[in-house]
Amino acid sequence: MSRAFNFSPGPATLPEPVLRQAQAEMLEWNGVGASIVEVSHRGPEFIEVARQAEADLRTLMSIPDDYAVLFLQGGATAQQALMALNFAAPGQTVDYVVTGHWGKTAIKQARPYVDVNIAADSEAGGFRDIPARDDWRLSKDAAYVHYTANETIHGVEFRDIPQVDNAPLFADFSSSIAAEPLDVSRFGMIYAGAQKNLGPVGVTVVIVRRDLFERAGQPRADIFNYQSHANGDSMLNTPPTWNWYLAGLMFKWMLAEGGVTEFARRNARKAALLYDTIDGSGGFYRNEVAHAARSRMNVPFFLRDAALDAAFLKEAGTAGLISLKGHRVLGGMRASIYNAMPEEGVQALASFMRDFQSRYG
Amino acid sequence: MSRAFNFSPGPATLPEPVLRQAQAEMLEWNGVGASIVEVSHRGPEFIEVARQAEADLRTLMSIPDDYAVLFLQGGATAQQALMALNFAAPGQTVDYVVTGHWGKTAIKQARPYVDVNIAADSEAGGFRDIPARDDWRLSKDAAYVHYTANETIHGVEFRDIPQVDNAPLFADFSSSIAAEPLDVSRFGMIYAGAQKNLGPVGVTVVIVRRDLFERAGQPRADIFNYQSHANGDSMLNTPPTWNWYLAGLMFKWMLAEGGVTEFARRNARKAALLYDTIDGSGGFYRNEVAHAARSRMNVPFFLRDAALDAAFLKEAGTAGLISLKGHRVLGGMRASIYNAMPEEGVQALASFMRDFQSRYG
Repeated sequence: MSRAFNFSPGPATLPEPVLRQAQAEMLEWNGVGASIVEVSHRGPEFIEVARQAEADLRTLMSIPDDYAVLFLQGGATAQQALMALNFAAPGQTVDYVVTGHWGKTAIKQARPYVDVNIAADSEAGGFRDIPARDDWRLSKDAAYVHYTANETIHGVEFRDIPQVDNAPLFADFSSSIAAEPLDVSRFGMIYAGAQKNLGPVGVTVVIVRRDLFERAGQPRADIFNYQSHANGDSMLNTPPTWNWYLAGLMFKWMLAEGGVTEFARRNARKAALLYDTIDGSGGFYRNEVAHAARSRMNVPFFLRDAALDAAFLKEAGTAGLISLKGHRVLGGMRASIYNAMPEEGVQALASFMRDFQSRYG
Repeated sequence: MSRAFNFSPGPATLPEPVLRQAQAEMLEWNGVGASIVEVSHRGPEFIEVARQAEADLRTLMSIPDDYAVLFLQGGATAQQALMALNFAAPGQTVDYVVTGHWGKTAIKQARPYVDVNIAADSEAGGFRDIPARDDWRLSKDAAYVHYTANETIHGVEFRDIPQVDNAPLFADFSSSIAAEPLDVSRFGMIYAGAQKNLGPVGVTVVIVRRDLFERAGQPRADIFNYQSHANGDSMLNTPPTWNWYLAGLMFKWMLAEGGVTEFARRNARKAALLYDTIDGSGGFYRNEVAHAARSRMNVPFFLRDAALDAAFLKEAGTAGLISLKGHRVLGGMRASIYNAMPEEGVQALASFMRDFQSRYG
């Protein structure tokens, strides 16, 4: 088959021009006589790719100079352990706000190293809303406050940056980074596996306010030390060069398309179309998340008659709409509509949903 | 320019058929309507890729069933920390044999967690030989004995597996894995960044004897737990799918070419030709490593007149022979001739070296 509209939650769809450039350069890149997969990360050619990717991400996200930008391995999950090792003293209290599956994962990784205070948790309500800020029970001397900006599985998203005063704010932005303008200066640390909104799998972006490096943290190997990575320009050891290069192509594409201001507009239109289709279906489709907390990035929805799920997925696939099956935790459907998902894709999905309903409703 | 013979120490050259397949599939893979970079690691299509890659590596290296094979992120350096965390008690003694730069790196990563006994160290001799086994001062109760099978910078390689009886043998095989038949059953753990002999950057192979998982190790996050990775088929979190896929293509290519027995023959011929060219140059070129410890994978060499280095590199580049500059620690030249370097490439280099000598010698 040809390329479909791919609603995968991650690894997720990439812009076709990015893939075409990677394809064209797969055997011979930049006049060096080899693919970029085959050249040293210490050579001037790759160092320029790395430098340019960082510069473009800084432009794209308006990252202030007093923040380090790291390109690492290990995914967001490894960062959830490393943040405790780097920025909390052994056994120090840290505050976590849990609004879905990934918030729980973050706690699991940190627990061996710190005393986790769950400041708020919406699990009792099925992770369908964001706990009101006034109800958070923050600690007095927390090393940091952690939350998940967008929960990929439950489709719950913070629409505003929460105000916290007791400690620096750390946030998992894996599934919503660079989806709209963000005031980075409100955060101590932002991290994101790149395979959703930034494109390629295998590289993780970590943005850290540099004064946090002064914290002693906990005994750890040098390879687990963020400051060492920062000092080594994220080349403490061999980085995932091809993945970093592909992220750089994605950043250039995003800048050329108009940057995060433009993607915020597109993402808002895409999400509105999909939620309107669901809400206007008279209950044939439903999304259970509180309206103010609905994710612009991941739209889980359910058919009233779950017996139709298989037909929905099969016919969607035939219509060129793939990876719509919901996460096993929730069942049903999920459409992930990150930056690289074109509006045409969401329009096609909305049309298909209305058509499917007209035939089975 | 077109594709050159690329002697990069890593990321290193890949077989052209592997790159051509990756290129052909860059926009649309396996009839799924998307690139493999864009599909979920939880989908049946990628799981089959992952399963097949492991099966092929097991065949290629004759890995016994009682060994787990993991495909991880973090590079070899992260494993050097994780092995201590997983397989040694806090502060337990571990034995390290140091034969070059990477052996020292391994110790640096382990030191925060264990009591490192340097059982042997050839640094005083400039890392030009392997310390005789009889001179190693192994501990009585070490958690493991670690050595570096091939030192990429110094060009020193163990030609035989050392006999140790006090503890399981752990070895960094980053630059010589699958270069010849190996009795995996002699080891507790083998690890290798894939970007040298196994092809793609961004994925690390870890081979562990399963009974070691019974060791409690040290307090650590789940993402740092090898047994959790094994239980999760190396998909505890989103793996570097594209890199894993490319490794799988490389394994298939190696099997089709005749497997490690054939690569052992080719690698022996390539190394012999290069060392013969150096040794037969009457001192115009020199390699300083003891003959019995010379690496088949990385051949560092020096021109008698270092003032000719720049001309050598420039003319080699013009002749389509690239990435020959030596590591900054040693200077001079280095030719890395891993599995994917064709014999024609080494023949071209040897011819160039003789020609260069005839003009400048």
